[in-house]
Amino acid sequence: MGNIKIGLIGAGRIGRLHAANLRHRVVGAEIVAVADVSPEAAKRCAQELSIPSALTDPRRIMDDPQIDAVFICTSTDTHASLIEQAAGAGKNIFCEKPIALDISAIDRALEAVKREGILLQIGFNRRFDPNFHRAHDLVAEGKIGQPHVLRITSRDSAPPPPEYVKTSGGIFLDMMIHDFDMARYLMQDEVEEVYATGAVLVDPRIGELGDVDTAVVTLRFKSGALGLIDNSRRAVYGYDQRAEVFGEKGTIIVSNPKPDTAVLSDSSGDSGSPLYHFFTDRYTEAYIAEMAAFIAAIEGGKIPLVTGRDGKIPVVMGHAAKLSYEEHRPVRLTEIDPNLV
Amino acid sequence: MGNIKIGLIGAGRIGRLHAANLRHRVVGAEIVAVADVSPEAAKRCAQELSIPSALTDPRRIMDDPQIDAVFICTSTDTHASLIEQAAGAGKNIFCEKPIALDISAIDRALEAVKREGILLQIGFNRRFDPNFHRAHDLVAEGKIGQPHVLRITSRDSAPPPPEYVKTSGGIFLDMMIHDFDMARYLMQDEVEEVYATGAVLVDPRIGELGDVDTAVVTLRFKSGALGLIDNSRRAVYGYDQRAEVFGEKGTIIVSNPKPDTAVLSDSSGDSGSPLYHFFTDRYTEAYIAEMAAFIAAIEGGKIPLVTGRDGKIPVVMGHAAKLSYEEHRPVRLTEIDPNLV
Amino acid sequence: MGNIKIGLIGAGRIGRLHAANLRHRVVGAEIVAVADVSPEAAKRCAQELSIPSALTDPRRIMDDPQIDAVFICTSTDTHASLIEQAAGAGKNIFCEKPIALDISAIDRALEAVKREGILLQIGFNRRFDPNFHRAHDLVAEGKIGQPHVLRITSRDSAPPPPEYVKTSGGIFLDMMIHDFDMARYLMQDEVEEVYATGAVLVDPRIGELGDVDTAVVTLRFKSGALGLIDNSRRAVYGYDQRAEVFGEKGTIIVSNPKPDTAVLSDSSGDSGSPLYHFFTDRYTEAYIAEMAAFIAAIEGGKIPLVTGRDGKIPVVMGHAAKLSYEEHRPVRLTEIDPNLV
Amino acid sequence: MGNIKIGLIGAGRIGRLHAANLRHRVVGAEIVAVADVSPEAAKRCAQELSIPSALTDPRRIMDDPQIDAVFICTSTDTHASLIEQAAGAGKNIFCEKPIALDISAIDRALEAVKREGILLQIGFNRRFDPNFHRAHDLVAEGKIGQPHVLRITSRDSAPPPPEYVKTSGGIFLDMMIHDFDMARYLMQDEVEEVYATGAVLVDPRIGELGDVDTAVVTLRFKSGALGLIDNSRRAVYGYDQRAEVFGEKGTIIVSNPKPDTAVLSDSSGDSGSPLYHFFTDRYTEAYIAEMAAFIAAIEGGKIPLVTGRDGKIPVVMGHAAKLSYEEHRPVRLTEIDPNLV
Repeated sequence: MGNIKIGLIGAGRIGRLHAANLRHRVVGAEIVAVADVSPEAAKRCAQELSIPSALTDPRRIMDDPQIDAVFICTSTDTHASLIEQAAGAGKNIFCEKPIALDISAIDRALEAVKREGILLQIGFNRRFDPNFHRAHDLVAEGKIGQPHVLRITSRDSAPPPPEYVKTSGGIFLDMMIHDFDMARYLMQDEVEEVYATGAVLVDPRIGELGDVDTAVVTLRFKSGALGLIDNSRRAVYGYDQRAEVFGEKGTIIVSNPKPDTAVLSDSSGDSGSPLYHFFTDRYTEAYIAEMAAFIAAIEGGKIPLVTGRDGKIPVVMGHAAKLSYEEHRPVRLTEIDPNLV
Repeated sequence: MGNIKIGLIGAGRIGRLHAANLRHRVVGAEIVAVADVSPEAAKRCAQELSIPSALTDPRRIMDDPQIDAVFICTSTDTHASLIEQAAGAGKNIFCEKPIALDISAIDRALEAVKREGILLQIGFNRRFDPNFHRAHDLVAEGKIGQPHVLRITSRDSAPPPPEYVKTSGGIFLDMMIHDFDMARYLMQDEVEEVYATGAVLVDPRIGELGDVDTAVVTLRFKSGALGLIDNSRRAVYGYDQRAEVFGEKGTIIVSNPKPDTAVLSDSSGDSGSPLYHFFTDRYTEAYIAEMAAFIAAIEGGKIPLVTGRDGKIPVVMGHAAKLSYEEHRPVRLTEIDPNLV
Repeated sequence: MGNIKIGLIGAGRIGRLHAANLRHRVVGAEIVAVADVSPEAAKRCAQELSIPSALTDPRRIMDDPQIDAVFICTSTDTHASLIEQAAGAGKNIFCEKPIALDISAIDRALEAVKREGILLQIGFNRRFDPNFHRAHDLVAEGKIGQPHVLRITSRDSAPPPPEYVKTSGGIFLDMMIHDFDMARYLMQDEVEEVYATGAVLVDPRIGELGDVDTAVVTLRFKSGALGLIDNSRRAVYGYDQRAEVFGEKGTIIVSNPKPDTAVLSDSSGDSGSPLYHFFTDRYTEAYIAEMAAFIAAIEGGKIPLVTGRDGKIPVVMGHAAKLSYEEHRPVRLTEIDPNLV
Repeated sequence: MGNIKIGLIGAGRIGRLHAANLRHRVVGAEIVAVADVSPEAAKRCAQELSIPSALTDPRRIMDDPQIDAVFICTSTDTHASLIEQAAGAGKNIFCEKPIALDISAIDRALEAVKREGILLQIGFNRRFDPNFHRAHDLVAEGKIGQPHVLRITSRDSAPPPPEYVKTSGGIFLDMMIHDFDMARYLMQDEVEEVYATGAVLVDPRIGELGDVDTAVVTLRFKSGALGLIDNSRRAVYGYDQRAEVFGEKGTIIVSNPKPDTAVLSDSSGDSGSPLYHFFTDRYTEAYIAEMAAFIAAIEGGKIPLVTGRDGKIPVVMGHAAKLSYEEHRPVRLTEIDPNLV
């Protein structure tokens, strides 16, 4: 079987990361074209990774009959329409999260995917992290029986620049969206209701933009299980991502992997190295596994591990959390999307 | 200086535990009388611990001029009135938590304590646990700067019998009250508002009594900091008590101490012993330190580490959480006690 | 059944520790007399622990018909003869380690014990530590199959004063003797040959006295298994005692228990509290369990967990290690005691 | 600056591993030819990694003027002569360990390297492991002051086939050689004397070939510090590689990194995943860093992190350990190589 031919749209940080992984770390794929609104960015990416064609217009990727799959790594506001175009062109799609901030735009995109029968995988990379993945499998194997309580802590090492915050949709839709996905993935259950509270404790400019930088959300799942998520935009000790699933027969705790295991004990006590500071270091293996899974799904004609629906629901949860925070009351997901079953 | 002479009221499990610690593990105290509504219980306790006098009427302890301090270890509904009596008799008091479920009863008891100028320490033993104590000190020393997020997990190894649940005030006032105290202790801040959610996942009989066995509460502190508490009445792997204080300069995590450090690695992985299963094992050292602190406070004329106010506020928080759960909305503490500043 | 009546000989640090544990922490024992060459020491100990009789002549303990058991906590050079006397008087005996530095003195003492049919327990307290005890049990249960390699690390927090070193028999007989006992206990096997090397790296005065302060010994067991022990007289980070038993089906690692579990993570990394610094803190529970075991052995007429033979063989191993170090060659235990089977 | 042009000799497991890392994970290098005695092996490797030229005769690599550096990944008995040839051709060299089992062959090879002034790096990959590397740096920074005791544990997950053992030089020269290198690297000191003992506990066929499968070695360093190494050919729980450097101001412990951090706690206790089972998984990052360091050394004209001398001394130590085991006595390194200073 020949390589899957890929066209990459968006040669920014995450696009180049995926491209490098596809080039060097994953077998069975080949990037044949890269498009970016900036011709320099496209060219530089093409050069670095020996991609034959550097473009500005994504349309040319859609129209290229040799291309099997399209990677959408552009800014969020373009995702949904590019999905519709790529689906219309019969391409399989890998799209970065979120599909869109607007639910109806997501619905239209997913409708197109369904209609065309192509395969869509959304970029919730943490599902491919070996630590969270192992926790998921232990839950799925019934090791803790019925899950009762989910706990997720997720803290960035440094806050984004205020201009990024402005267009990001805010902490619930930009940052906690990963935890909403993780909640569904680890619990294998759907959330019915959320309650959110937040505070501006890290950077007052984030508050001036109407957002918070510290947030706490509780979840109620359909099964009756409960959940807690806490987020902070700044953990000086590093990029901190932990989870716990507690259930009737036990609990599973995922702690942070460390860059090294050396521990120094001296007269002041024990000390070890700080955590990884960047998501690219923490999730190196996850990003590779995510690419491999996408290629394998295409090759095997299988349902991807992160479907369009998996891409949509965390956005609904993010809007529900935002509304809860704004109105200071618990919010059911059906208030945001009445069609959600 | 002679020993502090103590009269113990209530020779149940916790009364006998304190008495044994005072007898064998703490210097400077001497129990001279024990009273219990059951003459057999009083006699047995007196015999076991060489206490000279076994009584049924606590009044005789109040009236005994040689007695410096009274221990109130009876059922909750008698605490407040016994505090008033003991204060009226000029005795220093150690009283088990909670002072009362009724806020006005607490206020009357604390009023009497204030009026008589005696010393009152409430039995929030976890403040004396070396693990939580160390976390408190690190926060107090400014190691993490301004606290931003508090996380507490507290799970019993087995649910109480339903008849106990009936009179206990429910999970928020009986079990989570310890975590409300811990929240104030670790954060050195006051809570303004709580939001509670709960579920019956462990024992349906608890639900039939109108209580829950699994609960999650979020806290908003005066400083703006946020908190999360989760409780379960049953953790099959043992008595589980953890906390984290995250702040601007770092985070402090307290995990469970283990009965032993041996780890077996074999072809199926690494494995270690389960946690302690009983609070008496987990908090052995805390109970001793609590006694020593009370004796030291009397000897030194110092304010105890757990004051009457520290005894009251967690009850207010418990009522607020209960109301929040019942009315499905965030509740401010001033709704429960408008005088709370 | 009445309490076991005990006469304590030697009211120094370890004698008072055992006495306090017998008094406060163990059920079924009663110290009725304490003897010490210093009348002040005997009196002070008696007063502190409400012991009715304070003596200087141990003979009076031997002659007291109400006394069931004698504790020998004097200086090493008196142990063997006191064992002979106590055995002759028909008393059960708890004797601190080592029985003697001279093998023939040990043999005479053990002969007397055997002849009189009394019970003798030697003070190798570490067997009662819950961590090492758990490792022993896992080995005994066959969890690792046949043991292949034993590793023991044992480091004091500070070196003893040079005058102590002078009479102690040196590092192999004074300090590593505990590890030799642990080796037999954990491996449930006997050592045939040792090879020792050492260095003076901590305190030159120790070297001037002909001893070393840092030592490494390899062991060959009868089963063919191998062992490694390393000792240092000074670990600035605390009292460090670890062990590992590796075998055909796995490995068991015992690490140090910590005074608390709080971990601070800040921009410089993770840090935790130092280890315990004193053996009395590290082995608090072990000393209590040791006393309880001795009392239980008398009450039940059972063979003690640390017999006279268990007291003798580590002394033989200590002499073999010393000879190995001096002659710079491996030494078989039968070179020291040809009768050892 | 153009890429370093590389010729690879030996397309076996380790050769292909380095080649894949050079191709995909390291910037600045380009493999232009691969040679193997098996033309199929050379061809397959060339195809997989897009190497332009597949050869059988290493001479053609030596003679190719465009080639800057030669990788020697053939069987041990050919290393020394290939080094001499490559040095004679003016190529920089990366050579797998050991250079040779014969000391005089090593000396001749190192002489050629010196004479030609080319750069030689030996494949002691563990120096590039982030865990051991961090320990090394902490020692070098003086965090523990003067080192006193080194402990290394090194266990394979499964024994090699007996036919491999036959030509490997035995456990001391094949397996423990890595630990001898680690000893020098971590202690930054030279070993003067070793004492070795061993046993056949894993596979009797290894014993029939005159080798052991379980070995324990003690080291005496020039500084007076002491060391212990234990090896086993089979740890059923995985590939186990740990080290500790203990010194005057503290201790540094390197434990095993784990494939994931998930821990399950249930009624039987805590359990985590097994260790990595293969050195390629455990040392993935180390192999990449090793390649990057070699390329950087060439580019910068710097002394490599693992020199020819670093390649030689562990072989001397291996012979000393073997002799010690055979003659059952401590052996000084100068007995093996009198020229060793």
